Amino acid sequence: VTEVLLGVDIGGTTIAAGLVTPAGAVLAEAATPTHRHGPGTAVPAVESLIQDLLAQAVRQGATVVGIGVGAPGIVDAASGCVGRHTPHVPELAGFALAPVLAARFGLPVFLDNDVNALALGEWMFGEGRGAESLVVLAPGTGFGAAVVLDGRLVRGVSGYGGEFGHAPVKFDGPACWCGGRGCLALYASGRGIAERAREAAASGRAPALAGLAGGEAARITAAHVFGAALEGEPAAAAIVDEACRALGAAIATIVNGLNPAVLVITGGVAASYARLEKRVLAAAAEYCFRDALAATRLRIVPGDKRITMRGAAALVVYEMRGPARPRAGRP
Amino acid sequence: VTEVLLGVDIGGTTIAAGLVTPAGAVLAEAATPTHRHGPGTAVPAVESLIQDLLAQAVRQGATVVGIGVGAPGIVDAASGCVGRHTPHVPELAGFALAPVLAARFGLPVFLDNDVNALALGEWMFGEGRGAESLVVLAPGTGFGAAVVLDGRLVRGVSGYGGEFGHAPVKFDGPACWCGGRGCLALYASGRGIAERAREAAASGRAPALAGLAGGEAARITAAHVFGAALEGEPAAAAIVDEACRALGAAIATIVNGLNPAVLVITGGVAASYARLEKRVLAAAAEYCFRDALAATRLRIVPGDKRITMRGAAALVVYEMRGPARPRAGRP
Repeated sequence: VTEVLLGVDIGGTTIAAGLVTPAGAVLAEAATPTHRHGPGTAVPAVESLIQDLLAQAVRQGATVVGIGVGAPGIVDAASGCVGRHTPHVPELAGFALAPVLAARFGLPVFLDNDVNALALGEWMFGEGRGAESLVVLAPGTGFGAAVVLDGRLVRGVSGYGGEFGHAPVKFDGPACWCGGRGCLALYASGRGIAERAREAAASGRAPALAGLAGGEAARITAAHVFGAALEGEPAAAAIVDEACRALGAAIATIVNGLNPAVLVITGGVAASYARLEKRVLAAAAEYCFRDALAATRLRIVPGDKRITMRGAAALVVYEMRGPARPRAGRP
Repeated sequence: VTEVLLGVDIGGTTIAAGLVTPAGAVLAEAATPTHRHGPGTAVPAVESLIQDLLAQAVRQGATVVGIGVGAPGIVDAASGCVGRHTPHVPELAGFALAPVLAARFGLPVFLDNDVNALALGEWMFGEGRGAESLVVLAPGTGFGAAVVLDGRLVRGVSGYGGEFGHAPVKFDGPACWCGGRGCLALYASGRGIAERAREAAASGRAPALAGLAGGEAARITAAHVFGAALEGEPAAAAIVDEACRALGAAIATIVNGLNPAVLVITGGVAASYARLEKRVLAAAAEYCFRDALAATRLRIVPGDKRITMRGAAALVVYEMRGPARPRAGRP
């Protein structure tokens, strides 16, 4: 009988789940809108997807050894509870998701946040395969990040491990929506880029920006801004240039401070940064120690859309086998 | 027979060494100016100190199980070689210090950089005792930093692990002496603070600063600037306030991104920051996630002057016993 893993990626709009082999191959998958049956229905939706995939596993003669779940926000991996701040899936706030699913399906269930699941996917199956250390920066609507060092996820003492998206890159910068100031997300996330463009449009200083999105400033997205910048619109180009510089500074914080073998920039806005790869790399070089940057494999990739689901599945192996053994300090 | 460790802390001005018990007690110690016998004499000075302490161990009936050395700059802990950039002790550049000492004394010798040794000392004997994770920020003349996560030093793939002193805290800030821009060290290290004061004094905008150090701008130190700021001199107060804000931003990068159990701020300038503790904590609170900051024990301490030497000794135990075992993801 083949042993397989069941991975679930709970997003604000879609829940994706799949049967995944220990080598990362997807044998079956299913997805549903997070709130298909109305607000507050994410948990039954997750249960229904799991039920369907367990039935598929039976039909394929495979044994599901465990379920791994990636959820938004800060989670408590040890207890399997989702954190208190999950604005896009409010019914998950504080919910004991892993214990509830474990009781329902009689299987071991492991929970982590979605960016940690993504990083585990990149580390086990993707850009970081075989690396001893990996950092993921994931600019999307917000700005996620995750860290694997010496073969182990850095979860931190209260679950914040890896949250470099709200590291300040300009200590005297403007206030961020997180309550902080001058955060990376404010300059380099989709939301941050769109907000800066809306402000510029509203100020009257950037008529071309005001014309984006059919003249409705409130509907300007980061994609509009990147597009206008590539066409040479000066206000958009200035916003995108600051985004690249802020991203370069964050790369330096990671490369100089953690010196990982691999640094992957992925997520919703990564394709836009990939088109500006030279600019991002030049910005990174401006802030990094040369030897440290040379030792890190830096990749800007749109990434496999299923990598978070596959990484969530890999969480089962990561937790059940235990993390990689420590290498001895010397032989 | 008692087993003891021999620790050596090689600094730009002084080499300190001691016999240290596995519990961190100093049984005997010795020190010498790094270049007492002229330029290029640091290695024989180290050998001479070790010789003396080995003789003392014999007299005390103790067995030295190994030698741990903390050296400046980036080191390669695996090979025991010092890095290529050691401006204050140039004879160490690229030198195979651990193998040479091991051959000379017939004992296991372990090398790490001095801030990693300091962090090991704080983790085993000091502020971080018993903690699963610890970050040290060490503003002195420069700005050192080191990271222990899950009971293991983060050395990085090419030895830069922990070098958060040159993390940019202002991506559009001025050029730093390291070749980067807007680095933490530029705002918050002794050298950075002194340089900013000298610039302000030279510009003519800050006559009171120009009067420090007997009117010789080139001789202004960080201590002068902190002193003048505490007396209310506006230009000095502005420089110190920026230092506190930059330090607060760096604290947030660590607290939000690595979420360690303990964050220790120590080193040569730490006593000055300790007098401004409220200001530093207020700055940190401005940038940190509240829950993440609440979970980290933050201590600003001058620290034991011998902690680097004691931590270098602890390196022997760390390397010979292997790092702490990984905790299972769940029981």
